[in-house]
Amino acid sequence: MTAVIPPSVGAARGLVEPVLRDAVARLDPLTARVASYHLGWTDPAGGPVSSGGKALRPALVILSGRAAGGSAEQYLPAAAAVELVHAFSLLHDDIMDGDRMRRHRPSAWTVFGCSAAILAGDGLLSLAGELLLEDGAPGRVRAAHRLSIATRELVAGQALDLEFELRSDVSLDECREMATLKTGSLLACACSIGATAAGGPAPLVAALTAFGTEAGLAFQLTDDLLGIWGSPEVTGKPVLSDLRSRKKSLPVVAALTSGTAGGERLAGLLAGSEPLAEADLQEAARLVEETGGRSWAETEAKHRLDAAERHLADVDMPADVRAEFLDIAHFLTSRGH
Amino acid sequence: MTAVIPPSVGAARGLVEPVLRDAVARLDPLTARVASYHLGWTDPAGGPVSSGGKALRPALVILSGRAAGGSAEQYLPAAAAVELVHAFSLLHDDIMDGDRMRRHRPSAWTVFGCSAAILAGDGLLSLAGELLLEDGAPGRVRAAHRLSIATRELVAGQALDLEFELRSDVSLDECREMATLKTGSLLACACSIGATAAGGPAPLVAALTAFGTEAGLAFQLTDDLLGIWGSPEVTGKPVLSDLRSRKKSLPVVAALTSGTAGGERLAGLLAGSEPLAEADLQEAARLVEETGGRSWAETEAKHRLDAAERHLADVDMPADVRAEFLDIAHFLTSRGH
Repeated sequence: MTAVIPPSVGAARGLVEPVLRDAVARLDPLTARVASYHLGWTDPAGGPVSSGGKALRPALVILSGRAAGGSAEQYLPAAAAVELVHAFSLLHDDIMDGDRMRRHRPSAWTVFGCSAAILAGDGLLSLAGELLLEDGAPGRVRAAHRLSIATRELVAGQALDLEFELRSDVSLDECREMATLKTGSLLACACSIGATAAGGPAPLVAALTAFGTEAGLAFQLTDDLLGIWGSPEVTGKPVLSDLRSRKKSLPVVAALTSGTAGGERLAGLLAGSEPLAEADLQEAARLVEETGGRSWAETEAKHRLDAAERHLADVDMPADVRAEFLDIAHFLTSRGH
Repeated sequence: MTAVIPPSVGAARGLVEPVLRDAVARLDPLTARVASYHLGWTDPAGGPVSSGGKALRPALVILSGRAAGGSAEQYLPAAAAVELVHAFSLLHDDIMDGDRMRRHRPSAWTVFGCSAAILAGDGLLSLAGELLLEDGAPGRVRAAHRLSIATRELVAGQALDLEFELRSDVSLDECREMATLKTGSLLACACSIGATAAGGPAPLVAALTAFGTEAGLAFQLTDDLLGIWGSPEVTGKPVLSDLRSRKKSLPVVAALTSGTAGGERLAGLLAGSEPLAEADLQEAARLVEETGGRSWAETEAKHRLDAAERHLADVDMPADVRAEFLDIAHFLTSRGH
């Protein structure tokens, strides 16, 4: 079953989308068109469509501001800025990874070409800084600085991901570090930047950061499981998508480093560069399961979620904010299961 | 002859390079390696080389801070940030334009691949915001905001440049707008951001911005002339490079819109998509000259330089700072002539 989207996520989307649309309208027409398509607002010709992303990160930013005692409206520029950085990274990652589908649609580079997609990503990233620095929130400078660092960490995570493609000896620790940088950093930033912008106390910001890092890892583990066993209706990608692209995801690396005959067989299957036959893909998925890669990732996701909850329990915040944070964390780790 | 590099540019390089190296060292190893190569500090294997860029923009940032009464050291983060944005844009532009040479060396994407080059550009752009927001200068937020806007304008200029490649009806006004966005914006930002960071008076910031915009256009016109008639030793690119790539540079568009038979012949030559023969390239260059494209660009560059000087005369600043600004403006428009 597909988990129900938490109400705070739906509300965040309604609040942040006008801010995002105003921001994207500052871009030149070509770049704005690619960005609008990528954000799910328009079709390739620029006509309006009604889809759009889930606004998970904006919802976390708003909750984070509320945790520090602010109102949702106060943290919308930060919420929009985090979403812009997220959109930028997906746009560029799709080019680098050669991913042709994104949210059930052809990815932007396949529609507009690589140059326009590179440029649209650059434009979205520049808008993030622009928005955040216009904000009147007391901690906006610290927030903008934090977002720059998260962006640098995103880049570092993607760099490791690219490097792993060329290596056959990736350890589980390295893979976890990559996931922490690539997914955990921006999620940790989303969970804490509202409190930072609000000038909230350092222990609150630290606890929210730790919550976001752990929730981010749980999310990545879930996403990696979906990348193998998720149905195309949920993931918007072909079945066994991550095996097809030989991605060194966490469950795959757990299987490869299991020290089992199945792990060696899996390494052999993933070693070549020719497209894998459907039978090989099925066997690879079975091997990840048989060698314990799947159950390890499922257990690890639960542990990470528990750790995230403990960090949240460490600090004071309004009860409804805490409940909504947990609601989103559970949603992140239950999509499509 | 090649014009002598102004002393303030050499001094700026010595001041800003340590700040840039510290910043790049924050990147992950893969991204840092590509960035270091692109910045001219290392060879493809990561071994040190002694070249590096000219630090024109950092010199302008430092002068701009001094114009508002600051000392050079105070504005080094802003100087480094502008150089990082410049480096980011060159890295991504080379990929989009398919340019294989940069500063007499193979461009980064030809050495490390497109993915690593996209990522290194992203890393450099994120570092620019990070550095500027750590700075203690009073106007750092306004400066960082200004740099974000300049980056968005750079993107808009490059978007127009890409669009022009597909069109045969580009007007001179459109071409000038593109050059203003692509070259003028960041140069205007470089000329004013030091004063902005110093909390300098609005009329000074406005005059320095106008100076930088005009000097930027004069620079682009000069660069476009070099793109056709510059020697490979000066440009680091093949002879007739911009005609080879059918670039709609300012002198070319002036020729194409001259309403002459030569302009029509030039349009015919540039219309195809097959590589142009050497004889065709020679003829195209002659046509730009015969139709007045070359002399228009030379005269226009002089007019822009005069306008830049007038803007500088409008405001008070130390005499040595004014002289150094003019020195750099003249250098920008005399390279290789």
